[in-house]
Amino acid sequence: MTPEELDQLGIRMLLANTYHVYLRPGIDVVEKMGGLHRFMSWDKAILTDSGGYQIFSLARLRDISDKGAIFRSHIDGSQHLITPQSAIQFQESLGADIIMVLDECPSPTDTFEAIKKATERTHKWAEICQRSQTRNDQALFAIVQGGLYPELRRRSASLLASMGFAGYAIGGLSLGEPKVLTLAMVEETAALLPQDKPRYLMGVGSPEDVVEGVARGIDIFDSALPTQVARKGALFTRRGRYNIRNAAYKQVEAPVDSDCDCYTCRNFSAGYLNHLFKCREMLAYRLATIHNLSFMNSLMQRIRDAITSDTFNSFRDDFIAGYEPTDEKVRLAQKKKWLDAQNRKNINRG
Amino acid sequence: MTPEELDQLGIRMLLANTYHVYLRPGIDVVEKMGGLHRFMSWDKAILTDSGGYQIFSLARLRDISDKGAIFRSHIDGSQHLITPQSAIQFQESLGADIIMVLDECPSPTDTFEAIKKATERTHKWAEICQRSQTRNDQALFAIVQGGLYPELRRRSASLLASMGFAGYAIGGLSLGEPKVLTLAMVEETAALLPQDKPRYLMGVGSPEDVVEGVARGIDIFDSALPTQVARKGALFTRRGRYNIRNAAYKQVEAPVDSDCDCYTCRNFSAGYLNHLFKCREMLAYRLATIHNLSFMNSLMQRIRDAITSDTFNSFRDDFIAGYEPTDEKVRLAQKKKWLDAQNRKNINRG
Repeated sequence: MTPEELDQLGIRMLLANTYHVYLRPGIDVVEKMGGLHRFMSWDKAILTDSGGYQIFSLARLRDISDKGAIFRSHIDGSQHLITPQSAIQFQESLGADIIMVLDECPSPTDTFEAIKKATERTHKWAEICQRSQTRNDQALFAIVQGGLYPELRRRSASLLASMGFAGYAIGGLSLGEPKVLTLAMVEETAALLPQDKPRYLMGVGSPEDVVEGVARGIDIFDSALPTQVARKGALFTRRGRYNIRNAAYKQVEAPVDSDCDCYTCRNFSAGYLNHLFKCREMLAYRLATIHNLSFMNSLMQRIRDAITSDTFNSFRDDFIAGYEPTDEKVRLAQKKKWLDAQNRKNINRG
Repeated sequence: MTPEELDQLGIRMLLANTYHVYLRPGIDVVEKMGGLHRFMSWDKAILTDSGGYQIFSLARLRDISDKGAIFRSHIDGSQHLITPQSAIQFQESLGADIIMVLDECPSPTDTFEAIKKATERTHKWAEICQRSQTRNDQALFAIVQGGLYPELRRRSASLLASMGFAGYAIGGLSLGEPKVLTLAMVEETAALLPQDKPRYLMGVGSPEDVVEGVARGIDIFDSALPTQVARKGALFTRRGRYNIRNAAYKQVEAPVDSDCDCYTCRNFSAGYLNHLFKCREMLAYRLATIHNLSFMNSLMQRIRDAITSDTFNSFRDDFIAGYEPTDEKVRLAQKKKWLDAQNRKNINRG
């Protein structure tokens, strides 16, 4: 998607991964080219993550201590050290509007002891990150960890809240655990975070999860899901997710989603999209992406309107009643496949 | 590319391949969906070819007679018959603005006798196509064949010219022969085609060939080259074709082509494009495609302006002097590789 197109869709913030930019083209290159906004030709907001999540998933972790983490690139196997100090320094060079602390992101299946240790290290690193900040025009967000343990989550949230960050993220969720647990952890955590600061649920982005997240006090979400599934033909509607590659769409003259006024639905039949996907035309992936981003943006707008008019609870009930979510078994199997694929990359390249 | 985007680039006509549409999604499906214009949501001109070229290259030819050609689909190996009558019928159902006769497209390396026979059959089929036309709102173009034999080309051009078509195409060129021969054949042929009818050189589309083609009397070109090479990172400039994937571009802050005012060059550095290509981002292919289409469109505009102001000869001299074409040996090797790849598809699927 071009910046122009994202702007037309009403998108106001992009996320850039510090880990990916660090490896390619390099922080120094982007800095020399005038920072991320200029490099990407995007004059609206940018959020950079710290690299923590990728180091604990995509890269191959070699060693971790309170000082920092040594990891191998998933691209060429080269070895690198990241510290809380350098994570901030990198993000200052990139120049995003919102930057994130370096966190240790454990797997939800790790032991209580391992998750406790990772959470404590995350707190230490958060403090170092806060002290390392030299620019005053970037909002630094802390990240709550604690796995699936309510007591660790609560302690993490309270401690970080007391340290006075510009915003608070909830990390380490949506990593293969059942949705009911994800939402329970969000509920535990969000309640302890300051009312007057943005609360950001990392890596969550299905329509139903966004609605349920807002119901639990979340303001910001990030997720590759809407664009990722779009490229596989899965399109959001108010009734649920449908796959346009299904042969049933071949001769459908109506648009994919008759409630939608996005460029795709205004101009093309479901039959044409089905054809483009069968032919693996690049336009297929784009039109599907335009639709899903447009759907998410309009969902967020409807949520904001409902909050403003004090009708969010009935909006939520109506939405959830009308929306058939992806079957939980299928969803968990897909997530596992995706996490395994990440893992394989790691093993092959490490 | 979306219709909206093509429109912004100033593009006024698209080519659709009858062969491809016939196999997928099927002529009947497109007809039911309201014809090609509505199916693609494109309200400007469309040209459909007859399928002849693909049947003699991409598909596997099983049998040919004056009646028509039996071929196997390159997708699933299924067997089909196309006749001059059905080629017109299909194109009437699709509803393009310009339609083409069915021709037999021989290889330039075939014997004189084989090419002579193919050319004569092309003439017979042209006559049948002309008689088979039932719609009066589509311009039917004939196709001159004759391989690399000037006498066959001249006879084909004169004969078809006498039959009174709405326009005339030159087919069977740019199929791996040296450029000097392509241009010699164009020169022989174009001179014998009516002055007051459009002349269309099929499958030709590099910047230098377009300029040389116009110098020999050509009005219309079609080619996948500008978009195909764009997706591999090769970008046109007035000085020649450069590959943006080259590491030398990594830190270049200037746009790819400082003479260019396309969306890509107005907004992005060569360094950013280099980065997008390295990451295989879909945006890379799009930005490169936008640039090359914009370059070709502006080249055609400059050619039209030069003709109008009676300065085409000096424009041509300046352009050719400033433009370093792709090395002929490299070009022929690339072309051979491409034709072989087409052939392999054919063998694997046939």
